[in-house]
Amino acid sequence: MRISVINPNTTVSMTEQIAAAARSVAAPGTEIVGVTSSMGPASIESHYDEALSVPGVVEAIVRGERSDHPADAYVLACFGDPGLDAAREVASVPVVGIAEAAMHAASLLGRTFSVVTTLGRTIGRAEELAERYGLAGRCRGIHACEIPVLELETNPDTAGVLVDACRSAAEADGSDAIVLGCAGMADLAQVISAKIGVPVVDGVAAGTLLVQSLVTMGLRPRNTGELAPPIPKVYHGLLEPFGRGAIS
Amino acid sequence: MRISVINPNTTVSMTEQIAAAARSVAAPGTEIVGVTSSMGPASIESHYDEALSVPGVVEAIVRGERSDHPADAYVLACFGDPGLDAAREVASVPVVGIAEAAMHAASLLGRTFSVVTTLGRTIGRAEELAERYGLAGRCRGIHACEIPVLELETNPDTAGVLVDACRSAAEADGSDAIVLGCAGMADLAQVISAKIGVPVVDGVAAGTLLVQSLVTMGLRPRNTGELAPPIPKVYHGLLEPFGRGAIS
Amino acid sequence: MRISVINPNTTVSMTEQIAAAARSVAAPGTEIVGVTSSMGPASIESHYDEALSVPGVVEAIVRGERSDHPADAYVLACFGDPGLDAAREVASVPVVGIAEAAMHAASLLGRTFSVVTTLGRTIGRAEELAERYGLAGRCRGIHACEIPVLELETNPDTAGVLVDACRSAAEADGSDAIVLGCAGMADLAQVISAKIGVPVVDGVAAGTLLVQSLVTMGLRPRNTGELAPPIPKVYHGLLEPFGRGAIS
Amino acid sequence: MRISVINPNTTVSMTEQIAAAARSVAAPGTEIVGVTSSMGPASIESHYDEALSVPGVVEAIVRGERSDHPADAYVLACFGDPGLDAAREVASVPVVGIAEAAMHAASLLGRTFSVVTTLGRTIGRAEELAERYGLAGRCRGIHACEIPVLELETNPDTAGVLVDACRSAAEADGSDAIVLGCAGMADLAQVISAKIGVPVVDGVAAGTLLVQSLVTMGLRPRNTGELAPPIPKVYHGLLEPFGRGAIS
Amino acid sequence: MRISVINPNTTVSMTEQIAAAARSVAAPGTEIVGVTSSMGPASIESHYDEALSVPGVVEAIVRGERSDHPADAYVLACFGDPGLDAAREVASVPVVGIAEAAMHAASLLGRTFSVVTTLGRTIGRAEELAERYGLAGRCRGIHACEIPVLELETNPDTAGVLVDACRSAAEADGSDAIVLGCAGMADLAQVISAKIGVPVVDGVAAGTLLVQSLVTMGLRPRNTGELAPPIPKVYHGLLEPFGRGAIS
Amino acid sequence: MRISVINPNTTVSMTEQIAAAARSVAAPGTEIVGVTSSMGPASIESHYDEALSVPGVVEAIVRGERSDHPADAYVLACFGDPGLDAAREVASVPVVGIAEAAMHAASLLGRTFSVVTTLGRTIGRAEELAERYGLAGRCRGIHACEIPVLELETNPDTAGVLVDACRSAAEADGSDAIVLGCAGMADLAQVISAKIGVPVVDGVAAGTLLVQSLVTMGLRPRNTGELAPPIPKVYHGLLEPFGRGAIS
Repeated sequence: MRISVINPNTTVSMTEQIAAAARSVAAPGTEIVGVTSSMGPASIESHYDEALSVPGVVEAIVRGERSDHPADAYVLACFGDPGLDAAREVASVPVVGIAEAAMHAASLLGRTFSVVTTLGRTIGRAEELAERYGLAGRCRGIHACEIPVLELETNPDTAGVLVDACRSAAEADGSDAIVLGCAGMADLAQVISAKIGVPVVDGVAAGTLLVQSLVTMGLRPRNTGELAPPIPKVYHGLLEPFGRGAIS
Repeated sequence: MRISVINPNTTVSMTEQIAAAARSVAAPGTEIVGVTSSMGPASIESHYDEALSVPGVVEAIVRGERSDHPADAYVLACFGDPGLDAAREVASVPVVGIAEAAMHAASLLGRTFSVVTTLGRTIGRAEELAERYGLAGRCRGIHACEIPVLELETNPDTAGVLVDACRSAAEADGSDAIVLGCAGMADLAQVISAKIGVPVVDGVAAGTLLVQSLVTMGLRPRNTGELAPPIPKVYHGLLEPFGRGAIS
Repeated sequence: MRISVINPNTTVSMTEQIAAAARSVAAPGTEIVGVTSSMGPASIESHYDEALSVPGVVEAIVRGERSDHPADAYVLACFGDPGLDAAREVASVPVVGIAEAAMHAASLLGRTFSVVTTLGRTIGRAEELAERYGLAGRCRGIHACEIPVLELETNPDTAGVLVDACRSAAEADGSDAIVLGCAGMADLAQVISAKIGVPVVDGVAAGTLLVQSLVTMGLRPRNTGELAPPIPKVYHGLLEPFGRGAIS
Repeated sequence: MRISVINPNTTVSMTEQIAAAARSVAAPGTEIVGVTSSMGPASIESHYDEALSVPGVVEAIVRGERSDHPADAYVLACFGDPGLDAAREVASVPVVGIAEAAMHAASLLGRTFSVVTTLGRTIGRAEELAERYGLAGRCRGIHACEIPVLELETNPDTAGVLVDACRSAAEADGSDAIVLGCAGMADLAQVISAKIGVPVVDGVAAGTLLVQSLVTMGLRPRNTGELAPPIPKVYHGLLEPFGRGAIS
Repeated sequence: MRISVINPNTTVSMTEQIAAAARSVAAPGTEIVGVTSSMGPASIESHYDEALSVPGVVEAIVRGERSDHPADAYVLACFGDPGLDAAREVASVPVVGIAEAAMHAASLLGRTFSVVTTLGRTIGRAEELAERYGLAGRCRGIHACEIPVLELETNPDTAGVLVDACRSAAEADGSDAIVLGCAGMADLAQVISAKIGVPVVDGVAAGTLLVQSLVTMGLRPRNTGELAPPIPKVYHGLLEPFGRGAIS
Repeated sequence: MRISVINPNTTVSMTEQIAAAARSVAAPGTEIVGVTSSMGPASIESHYDEALSVPGVVEAIVRGERSDHPADAYVLACFGDPGLDAAREVASVPVVGIAEAAMHAASLLGRTFSVVTTLGRTIGRAEELAERYGLAGRCRGIHACEIPVLELETNPDTAGVLVDACRSAAEADGSDAIVLGCAGMADLAQVISAKIGVPVVDGVAAGTLLVQSLVTMGLRPRNTGELAPPIPKVYHGLLEPFGRGAIS
């Protein structure tokens, strides 16, 4: 089985970190292919960033679908789940976003969860996703550590700040689990959990395992109705693979 | 007052039709500027199309904000309200989507409304928007006429098919108003309403008038928190105006 | 176009203030007619007051509909939207309440709003209306300044108290807009907004502009089903125009 | 114990029928006093009728509260629960509406109920009340028999039509109980239930018994905050008891 | 009329207290039969306890249904309403849980209520029940006094602690009523209410009176569909009355 | 890794079938241990059956926790998820119900799913679970094939009936996936999916893979607050392991 883990931002070092997180949980027979988006923002911390990241996400999936060795599933490794619906139209195999995966997985650990994310300005998007996935009633709080995405890797205080933020969130909300709100936090989930004694869910691991589960069950999307392949048409100003005929 | 009415697809004839619909309701002192997206799909009929239309929408607003005569408000003239959140981050003036505008306006005409849209595959997006805007409880049905967006203009049966679809929807759902689910239907709202005796809301007119109302009241967005201007950063593979410093 | 702005309480000076607020935003060709309810409470600060204000509201509309120069639309200028459903049955043209208008308009400015109202005892009604209009999820808080309605005009501290209350609400709730919860605050919206740097929506202006927008679009209510004209019948103990035949 | 059962319309024969229904279920020591509203519509079949019925309802309670032998509780015997919030402000004892009572009682009989009401135009109000009381999720359908309120008593087909309507509703919705949507149907609940083998809840009986239960438990309203007694003020054009000082 | 009040735990002294509370409000002609569960936990303070209490509850009802003098109704006197759905399948007469009864009764006293329960760990179940009954929107808070169920009777501070907890809850939440979250608090409702000036609803009294009301109205469950009598089958390891043929 | 898959009914042949379904998807290093409940109904087709199955489920987990080789996770293999909350209190490792697992997994395949279950009388429970898990908005229909649980294995028409029922459900609801509503259908998921071209989710496979995913991520429940281990106490009439000290 091959799972393509797409980093919707263009920062290659982050792709590597994400792919490593995916590999660390994937089954022995599962190959993880990390893909860096070819265009868009270096990190995603606003609706604007997310909007500009979507074509790169979609392109990665179109290229993947056309390749000689297409993936058996895709993970979108940004907590805003950018382009998830569009991705589901163009992919003939399961696609899972990491916010989606983390929130669903956390829901299996008890009655409630809290989210700890990067910048406070992304809280609105996380609320919107929890609402969309039906899990807003289980989400007791969304908290920001105010470390920008690309500093997570470089800031020596990241682990400490996150441990504190997760502990505070768990105490304040009384939640049964913590969800990490950024793919860049993937490597810290187990460390934080060990420190605070609360299960901490990383979306990259959750997304990898959930999509691997779907493939193991032989589940492929229906690709009809709302999620049928897009009708071929002209896409002005966008290079291949978005041009006419791209999707057929 | 100048209102920029952005057509999120790249079909110029549709922009003209949209701008005409906006002009037909705007106040005497309001200038309507029709803007065609510079890149993306020729029409928007899927999540994929919508995803690829967003950069063009955002670019139009960034260029508008930087121009010598910036607009006092923007209307996003596609019923999927593509890029609305991103647009609100980069605009210092009100931005309204036509689905949003039409649904809010229809809510003022009674207790319920129904939507008549183009292709059935877009119903999911319309449901999602009604939910997001809080108006799903008022939306008693979403119906498709199965005429693609670009055929609305050219198909000689468009008016007849839409009259029938709107009448059926009003009868089946018992709704107090019909909302037209595509900017390309803007010129037909009054004709249909006259035929079926039910108020028919066109989002282009509604969007223009609602955003004109906001400007008249002197309301400008707060642009803080979630909707603060995006943090300047590198956008790979995207030409200006998306490059570093684009948003400052 | 003529818009009848009905003050549901019997305080004439407040009608004048309301009509002035409406005129300050109406289009050049729009005539604003302020109407003071002929019976009921001097101000509306309880369910009891609201209940007793409704016959006056309905009477004003019945008289309006029968007049030689009927209005093209009505605004109900009290934040409880008293008698809105009844008004919609008897009016053949659009009727909009100012709570409804303000909450819908505020929803176009971002993701969330807060309400600042007069007495704390009216908060329940505002919550109920937000729920009814589908906008409770966007309403992050309802706050009272504890100045009674009729003191808003006479209390020299009104502006200062409201500026403080609106600033606190915006900070505590992190909302994208403030909605003023009383028609008697109409003249202060722009002053407050300028002081606190947050858009402040006055319902009288919003109601006037939204209903003017509906008329500009040629939208008239369907007046069938639930909102059909009432069946003529005997109304004991109520003078004309409520007697038999009033509604035909 | 004395329970005042207020008929919000002005039709005395209906008051007698309602009082008889209340008496048929009240405990031996409970006195039922039927009160006919002194002003307003002869029957309530629209928002307009309901709006004009409210002052009479409120007056009946104000007079009751001031009487030498005030009631221990009030029942508002119209399925629109007109003036319920206002009544709760002016009454120092429990007030229950019959829609409220019937829906709550029906909820104790299983998972779901359906409503059978008079005219189709009242369905919207019933939906709104189910929503308000939190019971919309249990209400699987609201059906109209299209017999006007005052014909229920005189139309020889009433019983037959209602039996058919209730049976159809129970079958179509698969509900665990039927709620009768008009006080004028009170005497038929047991007959219908016997014919169709489904529990049929009459709101007059339910309201009487539920409010009797509250009194038996010694529960009196808190009358603070939103439901505190109204602030005394001038009520123009309304005779006593609504004048200044009425509520003190 | 005979009402069987089932204590789902096995503590006989608590059954006596519960039956006394029921008797204190029942009508003169209503016989209250207290039934102690024959198996399960001595008190119910967790999902585990509740799960293990359910067979005893169901057994009590099966035995009751088969007895020579079956009850006309059942009350389940534990605030978790254990086994309510199962009980409704096997009983041919109304069954009401005390959480259900208390929350519905409290809803008739105003717009909101708060719950004061025993241990904090039971709050989740109370939330779940409020949600299930449609009353979560009215429930403004659930508070724990942290006195275990069986200590309520023996702890000399119980009354004082509960008075304080109920007063705090009423003040913090601004609720119109307090609901006591344990059958073991039944005897204290009136005392607390007198001290704090807020109506305090005890579920045992509420359940007794509501179910007595249903019986007085002649309402018997439909017992079809989801709530039809269970299909006879083998129940391994469970003695009579659960064996094959138990339910026929 | 060892996963204990508990069959909440007492039919051993069904346990074998369930364990086989779990084994067919589990990772190579995962041992599946099928456990048949030691007491309770032979099949679960009512609230009554479910209530009586819960002690057996809980006992299986208590025994498991005390064993020398405790499992790393538990799956509750009945679509009513019987005893899930109680199980989570007594287990120190993840517990997942198959309804929960199947609905969450189906949610990752698109926007909507439909359920096909055994008897129509179980639809209410499935609705309740969808609501509880937050996924009711995604569940577009619940359909019964009216084959009892124990006949699924023996009825030669089972496969054909289920194929028809799933196809009809997918067509009528336009759903993106089908969820099978009984553990006894586990072996048919792939066959049905192949016939109808729609992904069909079996809860046993989904539960096994999701809980395996949680273990792979190192996630263990917090076991505090609502889900802390139960307080040791006396359980009358229940043999070990439920007696005092069982949970310590």
